[in-house]
Amino acid sequence: MRLALGISYCGSAYQGWQSQTGGQTVQDRLQAALAAFTATPAVSTLCAGRTDAGVHALMQVVHFDTPIERPLHAWVRGCNRYLPPDIAIQWAQPVPDAFHARASALARRYVYVLLESAVRPSLEHGRVGWVFRPLALPALQAAAAQLLGRHDFTSFRASSCQALSPVKHLRRLDISRHGAYWCFEFEADAFLHHMVRNLMGCLLAVGQGLHPPDWIAAVLAARSRAVAAPTFAPDGLYFIGPVYAPHWGLPSQVPGLDWLP
Amino acid sequence: MRLALGISYCGSAYQGWQSQTGGQTVQDRLQAALAAFTATPAVSTLCAGRTDAGVHALMQVVHFDTPIERPLHAWVRGCNRYLPPDIAIQWAQPVPDAFHARASALARRYVYVLLESAVRPSLEHGRVGWVFRPLALPALQAAAAQLLGRHDFTSFRASSCQALSPVKHLRRLDISRHGAYWCFEFEADAFLHHMVRNLMGCLLAVGQGLHPPDWIAAVLAARSRAVAAPTFAPDGLYFIGPVYAPHWGLPSQVPGLDWLP
Repeated sequence: MRLALGISYCGSAYQGWQSQTGGQTVQDRLQAALAAFTATPAVSTLCAGRTDAGVHALMQVVHFDTPIERPLHAWVRGCNRYLPPDIAIQWAQPVPDAFHARASALARRYVYVLLESAVRPSLEHGRVGWVFRPLALPALQAAAAQLLGRHDFTSFRASSCQALSPVKHLRRLDISRHGAYWCFEFEADAFLHHMVRNLMGCLLAVGQGLHPPDWIAAVLAARSRAVAAPTFAPDGLYFIGPVYAPHWGLPSQVPGLDWLP
Repeated sequence: MRLALGISYCGSAYQGWQSQTGGQTVQDRLQAALAAFTATPAVSTLCAGRTDAGVHALMQVVHFDTPIERPLHAWVRGCNRYLPPDIAIQWAQPVPDAFHARASALARRYVYVLLESAVRPSLEHGRVGWVFRPLALPALQAAAAQLLGRHDFTSFRASSCQALSPVKHLRRLDISRHGAYWCFEFEADAFLHHMVRNLMGCLLAVGQGLHPPDWIAAVLAARSRAVAAPTFAPDGLYFIGPVYAPHWGLPSQVPGLDWLP
């Protein structure tokens, strides 16, 4: 039987999603919990979007195959008992064998939460990015408009990126201000490695007046990581989750998004 | 010269505000930073509201006396360099010698942030309280109405409380829902030790239908800790800050409150 799980986590204490020999990753903790709950030696999972070290997830989705049958709420409550307090399974749902957490995702959504303040974060340390120079919304929006659509995003791609193609379709980039906080919401068919953090670095350079908005089009056209701004901090980055076709019957609600400013 | 500081912190990693021999308190960290910045052996501070272990502060206010003169922004930036990432000074302001962070406070404000969800918190672990049983707003509001005003709050007072009198004036108790999150905002002239957490325990017992709203009046009248509900978790409790008379000229803005749901 193939099972899908929706999982929320705070990434601050982890070396990202992907399993590593050190074991200090979200996938390692999840698989250890699944193994403990099912009393089987190893459970291998596949996720919708691998998050970097320090990046959080509101609704990561994974799938795995298991011969073990349990009530769905038992998977949630039982595995959560074996997970650390900063990781929790939100739901479990049986899916057809044709479902694949990564390949079936039609799109992915991320949000970057940023604090604009003369003083660094304290209460929200690790949960928000930070700029001390004031940001200009019109400049940010003019820059964002140039990124929308299907582009070769090589300039925003980490050298370690394993994607087959640098061409991605950025469908949405909404920027909004809430008091001292800013939200940058991204939706694309898929994202390259470090793409959101690299986009944030360039957007903030424009928002702070270091470059004009048109600079973004030049960076995009250059297809070179060297011309873009440095990768921005992971702290404020949240993987909202993947988007699937309704026929898979997965929960579409994202618990916890109300919490964001 | 007497100086007042506004300080924000995440209390999760600390044994509360008050200095202890172990040194793992917010006051210990602040005083160490002040000593390092001023290059003096010891700086003694006095705060507006001592927070418990695990309780956060949006704007704690302290005062201390120092012979050292520095620009105000230098106190903020300089000391923040010596503070851990989960504590930050937000402002520094000279005050008359008659100002006293605790004695001059006309009122204190707290907010308790609660997650109502079948699944425990993960992303917001340590930052929100949690109930899995649904809460009824009308019952909560009926219970809250009985607590407003000047009362003997002995039933909501920890045995360790050092306050001279158990009579406090609860001026405000506003309850609001934001998706899966609830905010409980308290304002009183002063609070007894554990008072907000003890009030939360009783309010949630009523909100979950374990007791009728009238039970709150009976608990209040009993003047006995034994009849009240257990002390609720510190995780979702934020000291918003003290209220001072305008003539002291202290910043009234509370940065970071936008972040709350």
